Amino acid sequence: MAATMKDIARRTGLGLATISSYFNGGNVREKNRIKIEEAIEELHYEVNEVARGLKTNATRTIGVVIPELNNTFCAEIITGMEDVLRSHGYATIVCDCRTDKKLEREAVEFLIRRRVDGIINMPVDEEGNHLKRFQKMGKPIVLIDRKIQGIDCDSVLVDNKKAAEDAVRYFIGRGHRNIGIIGGPEEVFTAQERMAGYYKALESAGIPVRESLIWHGDYTIQGGVRGLEELVQNNPEMTAVFVTNYEMTMGAMIGVNELGIRIPEQLSMIGFDNLQFARACNPKLTIVAQPTDGIAREVAKVMLNHLENAGETSGELFSEKLETEIIAGKSVRVLA
Amino acid sequence: MAATMKDIARRTGLGLATISSYFNGGNVREKNRIKIEEAIEELHYEVNEVARGLKTNATRTIGVVIPELNNTFCAEIITGMEDVLRSHGYATIVCDCRTDKKLEREAVEFLIRRRVDGIINMPVDEEGNHLKRFQKMGKPIVLIDRKIQGIDCDSVLVDNKKAAEDAVRYFIGRGHRNIGIIGGPEEVFTAQERMAGYYKALESAGIPVRESLIWHGDYTIQGGVRGLEELVQNNPEMTAVFVTNYEMTMGAMIGVNELGIRIPEQLSMIGFDNLQFARACNPKLTIVAQPTDGIAREVAKVMLNHLENAGETSGELFSEKLETEIIAGKSVRVLA
Repeated sequence: MAATMKDIARRTGLGLATISSYFNGGNVREKNRIKIEEAIEELHYEVNEVARGLKTNATRTIGVVIPELNNTFCAEIITGMEDVLRSHGYATIVCDCRTDKKLEREAVEFLIRRRVDGIINMPVDEEGNHLKRFQKMGKPIVLIDRKIQGIDCDSVLVDNKKAAEDAVRYFIGRGHRNIGIIGGPEEVFTAQERMAGYYKALESAGIPVRESLIWHGDYTIQGGVRGLEELVQNNPEMTAVFVTNYEMTMGAMIGVNELGIRIPEQLSMIGFDNLQFARACNPKLTIVAQPTDGIAREVAKVMLNHLENAGETSGELFSEKLETEIIAGKSVRVLA
Repeated sequence: MAATMKDIARRTGLGLATISSYFNGGNVREKNRIKIEEAIEELHYEVNEVARGLKTNATRTIGVVIPELNNTFCAEIITGMEDVLRSHGYATIVCDCRTDKKLEREAVEFLIRRRVDGIINMPVDEEGNHLKRFQKMGKPIVLIDRKIQGIDCDSVLVDNKKAAEDAVRYFIGRGHRNIGIIGGPEEVFTAQERMAGYYKALESAGIPVRESLIWHGDYTIQGGVRGLEELVQNNPEMTAVFVTNYEMTMGAMIGVNELGIRIPEQLSMIGFDNLQFARACNPKLTIVAQPTDGIAREVAKVMLNHLENAGETSGELFSEKLETEIIAGKSVRVLA
């Protein structure tokens, strides 16, 4: 007959509460953990998480829905979150929706059928229709990086407006006035915020905004290549360009190489994210760096708070805004 | 009372087999799919995957254990596999074990408790102790990129020996004889194969192997920086270097930039993986490219074959070796 938790309690001499805590990912003293694991081995005990899910109505599984797994920013955040969640006994099911609203809705439906306890989402559909049914079930949702107008839920954001403002001010402080921007998709929250920061920095310096210096990209590498080429072609007087996510930054560097433009002599550039890529660029790229580790930890913490202290939350929405920083390379020239 | 599959059959006029096929991710005609989804909506039907898992002893979940999610090669393969598996109704739980054998073993135990139907693993522990218990349960294991000595299971590999041989021959064909290599960890299968290819190319060209030109790295960015610096310092006569994975390639480019070495005038380089990164390098980097899409599709196919045609497999082990290709940039100089 299959061993039970009681058998493990008997074998180890520990209380059932301790054994239960072990299986639920709670804190268990190292020496007790070793005893329990020895007993599990000897008794060939196997937790049936599936059966437990039916009994407790909790599967200890968190669904994560992101636009692109193959995007460094997303991958770094998932790695960090997964570490924290797993150490608390939660599995994560990650669904990559390829920046497609229909696939995003399907991913959420898939996770609902899987009875996940909560969903972490970097939303593509910013109206949030895909999340409404899950929210009605009373289960927690935490949004990363983007807000949704129609849905009240917790979110962990980056101060994207200030991030862009800082980058453009950095150019202005070094004498640049003809500053281009490779922005993101107009319907995406982070892209709107970054664009707003660009406008704000120019306006506070009394520099008129010129439409020809603004390119609306799509946050992909190919979009960055195209944006750089178009901006350069349409603006011979442009001395600097700010690129607003990592993939487009890589694309802009490809464009610069393929056009044979010398940085910073012919064009100054500030990119976004990924310090290692910035160091591998020749010359080293100046970038706006987002606190991916901080975001990952914060998102996991907010989700765990919901799941483990369900009764104790104040009911107030949590919305944290983390700050970015500029890491200087050699890609910005000081104009005389 | 909760709606059942029979209610959906009645509402849509379709047979139970079709409804069942829909929920199991099988092929259902578009017009039937729409009918079924409308009925689900109207009847507020919810599949309880958890209950179904208990009944069928299949959870339609695949565990994926990889060394680093934050590694482009891994992330690309997972994205591709997940697409295929999800389209067949399988969820994936991805565990990142941080290239740590203990965490890898814990991840497999975690997946066993979750009752996954199969495990896809890019193994860190090349003795495979972490997989033995899962294999005894009679469930399928597919290995990616690395073999395990002690365990018989399917694997999808890349011909790493030939990949390295091709790269070194490429240098030799352009007049290089003092060719360095930044290799991977000596205990890792892919690293051994790539090193063997380096030896083979030199030996067939009658060039003696010199220990000072060989650096054993650790497949990380920082390892690449260090390897490049050490090789350059210890080998003033070295004219070319082959870097054997993507992260170390990025690191080697960082090293080159920080030392102010001009490529290809002072040093020729061939990197590994990631065409977009290669294009963003200045000058464009020549690389060995692995067929990540092909690997992803192949792995998913082999796993699905096990799960869906369990009775029909021949019992023979499947082991496919995919070919790499060299994509030429401007980082290799022709020596007079």
